[in-house]
Amino acid sequence: MQQIVDDIAAQMASKSDKGAVASYIPQLACVDPNQFAISVALPDGSLYSAGCSETLFSIQSISKVFTLTLALGKLGERVWTRVGREPSGDPFNSIVQLEHEHGKPRNPFVNAGAIAIADAILHGHQPKETLAEILRFMRFMANDESITIDEKVARSELETGDRNASLAHFMASFGHFENSVDAVLGTYFHHCSIAMNTIQLATSGLFLANDGINPTTGYRVVSSNRAKRINSLMLMCGHYDGSGEFAFRVGLPGKSGVGGGILAVAPGKASIAVWSPGLDPIGNSKLGTQALELLVKRTGWSVFGK
Amino acid sequence: MQQIVDDIAAQMASKSDKGAVASYIPQLACVDPNQFAISVALPDGSLYSAGCSETLFSIQSISKVFTLTLALGKLGERVWTRVGREPSGDPFNSIVQLEHEHGKPRNPFVNAGAIAIADAILHGHQPKETLAEILRFMRFMANDESITIDEKVARSELETGDRNASLAHFMASFGHFENSVDAVLGTYFHHCSIAMNTIQLATSGLFLANDGINPTTGYRVVSSNRAKRINSLMLMCGHYDGSGEFAFRVGLPGKSGVGGGILAVAPGKASIAVWSPGLDPIGNSKLGTQALELLVKRTGWSVFGK
Amino acid sequence: MQQIVDDIAAQMASKSDKGAVASYIPQLACVDPNQFAISVALPDGSLYSAGCSETLFSIQSISKVFTLTLALGKLGERVWTRVGREPSGDPFNSIVQLEHEHGKPRNPFVNAGAIAIADAILHGHQPKETLAEILRFMRFMANDESITIDEKVARSELETGDRNASLAHFMASFGHFENSVDAVLGTYFHHCSIAMNTIQLATSGLFLANDGINPTTGYRVVSSNRAKRINSLMLMCGHYDGSGEFAFRVGLPGKSGVGGGILAVAPGKASIAVWSPGLDPIGNSKLGTQALELLVKRTGWSVFGK
Amino acid sequence: MQQIVDDIAAQMASKSDKGAVASYIPQLACVDPNQFAISVALPDGSLYSAGCSETLFSIQSISKVFTLTLALGKLGERVWTRVGREPSGDPFNSIVQLEHEHGKPRNPFVNAGAIAIADAILHGHQPKETLAEILRFMRFMANDESITIDEKVARSELETGDRNASLAHFMASFGHFENSVDAVLGTYFHHCSIAMNTIQLATSGLFLANDGINPTTGYRVVSSNRAKRINSLMLMCGHYDGSGEFAFRVGLPGKSGVGGGILAVAPGKASIAVWSPGLDPIGNSKLGTQALELLVKRTGWSVFGK
Repeated sequence: MQQIVDDIAAQMASKSDKGAVASYIPQLACVDPNQFAISVALPDGSLYSAGCSETLFSIQSISKVFTLTLALGKLGERVWTRVGREPSGDPFNSIVQLEHEHGKPRNPFVNAGAIAIADAILHGHQPKETLAEILRFMRFMANDESITIDEKVARSELETGDRNASLAHFMASFGHFENSVDAVLGTYFHHCSIAMNTIQLATSGLFLANDGINPTTGYRVVSSNRAKRINSLMLMCGHYDGSGEFAFRVGLPGKSGVGGGILAVAPGKASIAVWSPGLDPIGNSKLGTQALELLVKRTGWSVFGK
Repeated sequence: MQQIVDDIAAQMASKSDKGAVASYIPQLACVDPNQFAISVALPDGSLYSAGCSETLFSIQSISKVFTLTLALGKLGERVWTRVGREPSGDPFNSIVQLEHEHGKPRNPFVNAGAIAIADAILHGHQPKETLAEILRFMRFMANDESITIDEKVARSELETGDRNASLAHFMASFGHFENSVDAVLGTYFHHCSIAMNTIQLATSGLFLANDGINPTTGYRVVSSNRAKRINSLMLMCGHYDGSGEFAFRVGLPGKSGVGGGILAVAPGKASIAVWSPGLDPIGNSKLGTQALELLVKRTGWSVFGK
Repeated sequence: MQQIVDDIAAQMASKSDKGAVASYIPQLACVDPNQFAISVALPDGSLYSAGCSETLFSIQSISKVFTLTLALGKLGERVWTRVGREPSGDPFNSIVQLEHEHGKPRNPFVNAGAIAIADAILHGHQPKETLAEILRFMRFMANDESITIDEKVARSELETGDRNASLAHFMASFGHFENSVDAVLGTYFHHCSIAMNTIQLATSGLFLANDGINPTTGYRVVSSNRAKRINSLMLMCGHYDGSGEFAFRVGLPGKSGVGGGILAVAPGKASIAVWSPGLDPIGNSKLGTQALELLVKRTGWSVFGK
Repeated sequence: MQQIVDDIAAQMASKSDKGAVASYIPQLACVDPNQFAISVALPDGSLYSAGCSETLFSIQSISKVFTLTLALGKLGERVWTRVGREPSGDPFNSIVQLEHEHGKPRNPFVNAGAIAIADAILHGHQPKETLAEILRFMRFMANDESITIDEKVARSELETGDRNASLAHFMASFGHFENSVDAVLGTYFHHCSIAMNTIQLATSGLFLANDGINPTTGYRVVSSNRAKRINSLMLMCGHYDGSGEFAFRVGLPGKSGVGGGILAVAPGKASIAVWSPGLDPIGNSKLGTQALELLVKRTGWSVFGK
């Protein structure tokens, strides 16, 4: 496995087209695009990394996997009154579907859906408390107490977050929100601004590869049934209107973030985190996707066959 | 396994709500809704069935899996100039997406996509020749020379096929068609009217569970890579705007037909065909979906974990 | 008035950018773009023309004004169960609105709406009979027995009419049609292929400028109330998604055709026909619109003030 | 004329179905629905009123006519870089069109368009200054210094204005705004909360009926050309997706407000204000529309003929 990840990192280093760094959040725009990291965590506790796997990056939308997990723990199946579980066929920030479906987002991974999830887990608490809870959860999942929120990124998002504010006010106009739009957006922007490296991220995702149990701690995070369902949502909707392409090329449940990270799950086999800040036109990490494609080719881990 | 399929058939027989038989194709509307069949074909050649697994039914949209397979064999990757590979988020017969995307269907499994595939495999030939080729392919896949087209159903579809005619003319108006709309629709309606039973269908799908090789004949139908990709498309788009729900509940690549059949694939493990004519509101077999849900629970075959 | 129309014709002759002749109907594409005609018919029976006002052209969608008039005569207010009377905000051949509104077109002047009107006036008759009736009506309106259908154009439209066929089949799929799609499309394509010159067209529109009475014959075509309503529909919807622009610049009820003609009505004052085959990007006659703008500036005929 | 307005008021008093008072702005919901007023102002300075024509009501969206007039005065034709001038075919608060057209509203009378106009007239100033300017303009137009903003209504709108906030943030996300979303919304909600009676409103609209000149003051408000264009926009877009219906039934340029007022213009003849708080399902005053329909029938003022 170490050989495989080293080969992949070497191949990625030689690529000339690394995609374009996200520009719409100013704080993300200044990241060096020539970075690449991969970490593969196995259920037996072993971990294989290559590239700058200790460099922190903004996990952005990957955090949606964990806030969904928290929301499922708190609300159970009532989560599905707030968001659907179908792919949207639309970009991550589309509002058209919201108008056609009375303010209910298609799934928890488009921005509107994750904002609705943020409202659900706030549930009348202060954003500060809820963010502390999210952070505790991430630290526990990653088995690493050092994880924090990058306040500069959070502020940068708040200042430029008109599209997300539009989505939030739109849902609020249907009376769907329990909390103020400001509290919800504050929570959302902050959990998107959690900084992690690929080692922490791959470790955090292990419970999804291991039937709901985090093998490093032995702790059951979710039921085995729920782990499968989160995986199914990641496969169906984890890459927005590029989800079909990712399933086609990689064949693993995965969730991308605009910071260039991707968390992928090979059920029963591995949790994988890759990071490279350059994005493809849809907004998913260009080299990250290519690295996962290679990894699956080498390991035969596609859920769709060898 | 025989025990499992028998149990499932028994449970399904006891259900009171069996959904509503499709009414928009008159010939399908007169099927008895109290029927259920399941067949599980394993790569080792063994086959387990329960219910009326020898009763023929109209495979309808399940045929799209096989016409896509044929088209990939003929055109290779050029197929993707004709159809995309993303879920559409829309019903099977929606035309909105076509207008927004200049007449290119989102994927080969929505009606518009399958009609475009029919145009691609016609490629200037007579519909009769192309249909003969499709039938030969189905007989070879099922290892059963008795498979035919139900002409009554085909005629019924032609007479009531205004929505599909609308989709076809719409695409033709962009200059996307090589053949006349009539030839394309004739081909499409006829391949949807192939009649099969669950035994034949489960056998036909085995190549998708077996890395592209049909184990009953030993013949390689498609490359292992292509088998994975067809599976990914089935998972992402095989149940129209109910694909997310099917992935969430069943967790297998699958393709439904409005005749009440579903072909599902457990990669490396099994090809499964179920049939029950009653449909849920989205147009997928109600008991068929429930039966697959039970099967996966008993076998742990979900691609998303145990 | 003769001075005004002569001036306008002279100004139009000097324009270098005359727009592009419609290319999607092959028979229309071979018309010489350097032609211009204007005719102004007054309620007192006087007529002022300039340019090639005796040259026949394909009236195309202008015919929709007259089929709507016929349909109102036959069905009365029941016409509004078949089509709405709101602007669509969409191009003339859009199908999106039809899907969102269950197959009922927004107004009688978008293609779908006029096709629905053709179905309504067919009402079980043969297309040949209905077309004969439409022709009789046009000849009576224009007070000219020579008006006919250009069969070459009609055939050209039939052969290239996939978009309209798509719209027709779409509506038929909702069960909205009384007649076969072929009969409806045949009727529609033929009435769009009526050939007229600006003199005939301006004369035909006089009843709309004269409270429903054709002053050349003294015959009441429609009630004064209905004349106003047809005028309102022409203003709101007569130029598709360019209707706002036409109202803004010209300020008269008008109906354009892709053949380059426009019929405009100055209520109480005049019926005006202009023709120049070059179109603007939305599909309305470029010089025709400019000529009307000039005419209104010179005459103060805008319905919105001097 | 006094006889006509008295008759209309009497007829309206006898109607049993007066529509439903707008409920989404709490402060508007408590208005007594059994009120009706009409005022007709003629260019010669005479004024005819009936009903409670001195009762103040919230002019709401009618204010958009005056902010557009101001914006045209400040920016001239550059206004059209901010908003289009086509009917939208969508409800007043739709966001779908905004996404499809990159954040540019279809016209200045849908909410998004009027919010964009508020941004344009703010142009870096404080909302307080701009609102003072709007008020001065309204007082001058109405020739009445007593006109003010109803602060309770403005606050009520701010508190429940999520849908408008969504529209504003959406446009801001395209970088279209010069001012902060809060300043723009504050301005917008306040100018919508101006309280006027039908006498003041009819007087204010006279310049549109009189080629741009306010006859009570002799002051030219806009060029005659611009007056026509504002009238054309009112006719095409003044009643949202009920504009076609209003043109069909009434046949005058008009602008409705959710407070139950309508300002209508008979070019060259009269400026008319009606008020009755009950709305039809689209959000336009039910009795107000009926009263205008009667008035036009009695006076022959329709722009579409007698």
